[in-house]
Amino acid sequence: MGAKQTLAELAEAVGGKVRGDPNVAITGVAAVDEAGPNEITWAADPKHAAKLSASRAGAVVAPTDFEPTPMPAVLCDDPENAIAVILDRLAPAVWRPEPGVHPTAVVAEAATLGKDVAVGPHAVVGDRAVVGDRTVLHAHVVIGPEVTIGPDCVFWSHAVVRERCIIGARVIVHPQVTIGSDGYGYRFADGCHHKIPQIGIVRIEDDVEIGAGSCIDRAKVGQTVIGQGTKIDNLVQIAHNVEVGPQCLLVAQVGIAGTVRLGQYVVLGGKVGVRDHVSIGDGVKVGACSCIAQDVPAGALLAGIPARDGNLWLRQQVLLDRLPQMHVQMRELEKRVASLEAAADHQQDG
Amino acid sequence: MGAKQTLAELAEAVGGKVRGDPNVAITGVAAVDEAGPNEITWAADPKHAAKLSASRAGAVVAPTDFEPTPMPAVLCDDPENAIAVILDRLAPAVWRPEPGVHPTAVVAEAATLGKDVAVGPHAVVGDRAVVGDRTVLHAHVVIGPEVTIGPDCVFWSHAVVRERCIIGARVIVHPQVTIGSDGYGYRFADGCHHKIPQIGIVRIEDDVEIGAGSCIDRAKVGQTVIGQGTKIDNLVQIAHNVEVGPQCLLVAQVGIAGTVRLGQYVVLGGKVGVRDHVSIGDGVKVGACSCIAQDVPAGALLAGIPARDGNLWLRQQVLLDRLPQMHVQMRELEKRVASLEAAADHQQDG
Amino acid sequence: MGAKQTLAELAEAVGGKVRGDPNVAITGVAAVDEAGPNEITWAADPKHAAKLSASRAGAVVAPTDFEPTPMPAVLCDDPENAIAVILDRLAPAVWRPEPGVHPTAVVAEAATLGKDVAVGPHAVVGDRAVVGDRTVLHAHVVIGPEVTIGPDCVFWSHAVVRERCIIGARVIVHPQVTIGSDGYGYRFADGCHHKIPQIGIVRIEDDVEIGAGSCIDRAKVGQTVIGQGTKIDNLVQIAHNVEVGPQCLLVAQVGIAGTVRLGQYVVLGGKVGVRDHVSIGDGVKVGACSCIAQDVPAGALLAGIPARDGNLWLRQQVLLDRLPQMHVQMRELEKRVASLEAAADHQQDG
Repeated sequence: MGAKQTLAELAEAVGGKVRGDPNVAITGVAAVDEAGPNEITWAADPKHAAKLSASRAGAVVAPTDFEPTPMPAVLCDDPENAIAVILDRLAPAVWRPEPGVHPTAVVAEAATLGKDVAVGPHAVVGDRAVVGDRTVLHAHVVIGPEVTIGPDCVFWSHAVVRERCIIGARVIVHPQVTIGSDGYGYRFADGCHHKIPQIGIVRIEDDVEIGAGSCIDRAKVGQTVIGQGTKIDNLVQIAHNVEVGPQCLLVAQVGIAGTVRLGQYVVLGGKVGVRDHVSIGDGVKVGACSCIAQDVPAGALLAGIPARDGNLWLRQQVLLDRLPQMHVQMRELEKRVASLEAAADHQQDG
Repeated sequence: MGAKQTLAELAEAVGGKVRGDPNVAITGVAAVDEAGPNEITWAADPKHAAKLSASRAGAVVAPTDFEPTPMPAVLCDDPENAIAVILDRLAPAVWRPEPGVHPTAVVAEAATLGKDVAVGPHAVVGDRAVVGDRTVLHAHVVIGPEVTIGPDCVFWSHAVVRERCIIGARVIVHPQVTIGSDGYGYRFADGCHHKIPQIGIVRIEDDVEIGAGSCIDRAKVGQTVIGQGTKIDNLVQIAHNVEVGPQCLLVAQVGIAGTVRLGQYVVLGGKVGVRDHVSIGDGVKVGACSCIAQDVPAGALLAGIPARDGNLWLRQQVLLDRLPQMHVQMRELEKRVASLEAAADHQQDG
Repeated sequence: MGAKQTLAELAEAVGGKVRGDPNVAITGVAAVDEAGPNEITWAADPKHAAKLSASRAGAVVAPTDFEPTPMPAVLCDDPENAIAVILDRLAPAVWRPEPGVHPTAVVAEAATLGKDVAVGPHAVVGDRAVVGDRTVLHAHVVIGPEVTIGPDCVFWSHAVVRERCIIGARVIVHPQVTIGSDGYGYRFADGCHHKIPQIGIVRIEDDVEIGAGSCIDRAKVGQTVIGQGTKIDNLVQIAHNVEVGPQCLLVAQVGIAGTVRLGQYVVLGGKVGVRDHVSIGDGVKVGACSCIAQDVPAGALLAGIPARDGNLWLRQQVLLDRLPQMHVQMRELEKRVASLEAAADHQQDG
């Protein structure tokens, strides 16, 4: 279980104000219909007020001007952010195996495990691999030969890191992730696609998180790089020789083709595709389900297939909905013009 | 191997009529070029008639008005449905490991296995996990601590269920599925994305099926829910706190963002994306490759990025194909109007 | 480590000419900033010239008319192809476990392993499975009962092949791949979706490569087929009863629905979706993020959702960007026509 805090302490942490008893002791966060007397819940919206009367929650986080609540409240400008801060203080530790190597794990003799590393059941650590202090390899993780992993990482079950890849500190890798698979590279000759050897690696910098089922291919030559603090959601595809800058957000099912460059603080919405060899500048934001087909300057907001200026795209969507009407108007205009022309002819003739 | 039935019995089961010998014994279903004398095949289309003359099949399912066939036939209104019903009667049992725990499996002492549970090679069952009667965990399945699984489920190889998730009865989970990975939630402060603890769970109701490689994230707080009888195809992404109603169909590569609500009998075509916090009403159907960006009332048929009324979308596609022509027409109209204006000016001047 | 070749030998292999010392010994390929004196790098673009002056590379591959370089060069028409050919000659062998069965692997007694097969830690080979000579099963691969695998294949960690599937020679299967999972088939009756048994198999022909996390469903009845030499990228979904012809390229995150037929040499760009029961002719090329909704004749180039002629689609994108302007022009035209009509009326009245 997590820590215990008074409502006053939580209010201070989130920059809010207590309404009601500031001494209520809170040990956890829970949804409004599940919270007990030692838990805090939230009400982001006036719609949620009704549910509070039936709730057993010990306290609630609500917007500054929220109506009176049956339990003490922390009032603040941004309840969603506040609950994230409170979760950070009260969340119970995430489950992990005990430090040590499970007897069913297969750790190569020439591998180096740091202090307090936990290697779960059936995990495999290859020859000359190095695993940093306190890193956790859950059941069935496979770490290839000569892989280097920093301290305080967590690899969830079935994650695979192929040979020679480099992983920084505090990296979180979710289940079924593949790091370092061969890039998709072929040479066409004699009617066949011939595999091009993919001899590079993947380098993951510190504080990266990689969602379940995502794939990051190794470079043909050199490195595929994921920059410091970048967060990758589930089922994302990153091709060979891509370089993603620091602090980017790649939402679920994004696909990035070979040799793409992303600057820092780039946000790609869900299912965005990026064509190979494209460069995307710092701070670019791309709407979900878009496809980037050419270089994008820093700071741009884009949407569409292919992606274009986000405002232009929005305007186009409105006009697409009027397209049937435009088509009718055009036909009517043509008739009116034809009739004017006929009248003019008639007049001329007359 | 499966059961044995006469053609008469099969015809009765599908509400069809036998043409030819009703006593032919059928033990299986096979494609027209693979079927043997004890197997039944199908011919949904007159195009398939030619292939029947070369087939060794013992019988055929065909539409009511199908031409004479070289083998006895079951004639019915919907051969595709009929073959599904017949498959249900004759399909051999799907392969599964014998009940019992494989010696290489790692089952925590405090885990509870029901009657006739099968735990395959290298499978892992965590502390205080509960697995219902007759449930099958194939090789390499990883069940986290305190997970509860109902009876008669099948988990295929490499499926992962993280701690505390709840799985109902008769749930089928295909290979490489992840249930209960962390939701994609961050708080931006000091130039970095800070992970928000994801302390909720996933709850899968009875009779759900989850396709290979799909990912269902645990809730930030509370539950991500997949409703009774919902069928999820391969490589589908379901984010934290999503609630999917009963009997929905989510086709391959669908992606649903955080806190989305789906009613019952919703059908999302392949690759459909749904934006976070959207509500989708009962019986909504969405065409493949669409993107839902706002709430959808019950019964709607939608398509497009962003999704709009399906008929409007179809009309737009027709008009898009005429857009080049519309553009030319517009320029011609402008010329004609300019020429009328010139004539009018001339007249006025004259 | 790989072989050693002189610059003269490499130039001959790629059909290029040496500029500078032809006797330089080259043992590997590396990026411009990583290459050492025994490695060759490349400069595809004049932009890369500056980096060469700081490079320690022993040689460089460059276009025929490239400016003088500080190290000897192989000049040729297509440096990208040349470097692929050179990689093929010099790339070090990819890491693989030694031939033999790892003591933690579980190989059924009735399975047949060919000569020099390598079975890695915790791999599982089912009853009556047959694995061809020199095939490698990396750690945690699961091969189901009665699967047949040809010689010289490589299965990377966590790949799963379900029962009875057939795999050819020289097939490469990347991590987390699923071959032979149930197709997504249901029969709707009594308000529920009832699973249709999926009793067919998957057949993978020779020289196929399947990217990380991809899924290929078994046929309902009969076979799902991947044709000889076809290359499948990461996170691709192939549904039941699909038949993909030889030498196709299916780029990442492609999704192909049930019973689709692809001819030979078809190229589907990233994220392309194909509707069920569609036939796609030989040599068809489809742009990324498109959706094929109907049959496509051989040789077509398509793009869009739904896909249409690629040139028409390009023209539409240009006109979509002009749509706001077209809308304004239309309104102006209407005003001008109304004003002409008023003048005409006035004249008539006058």
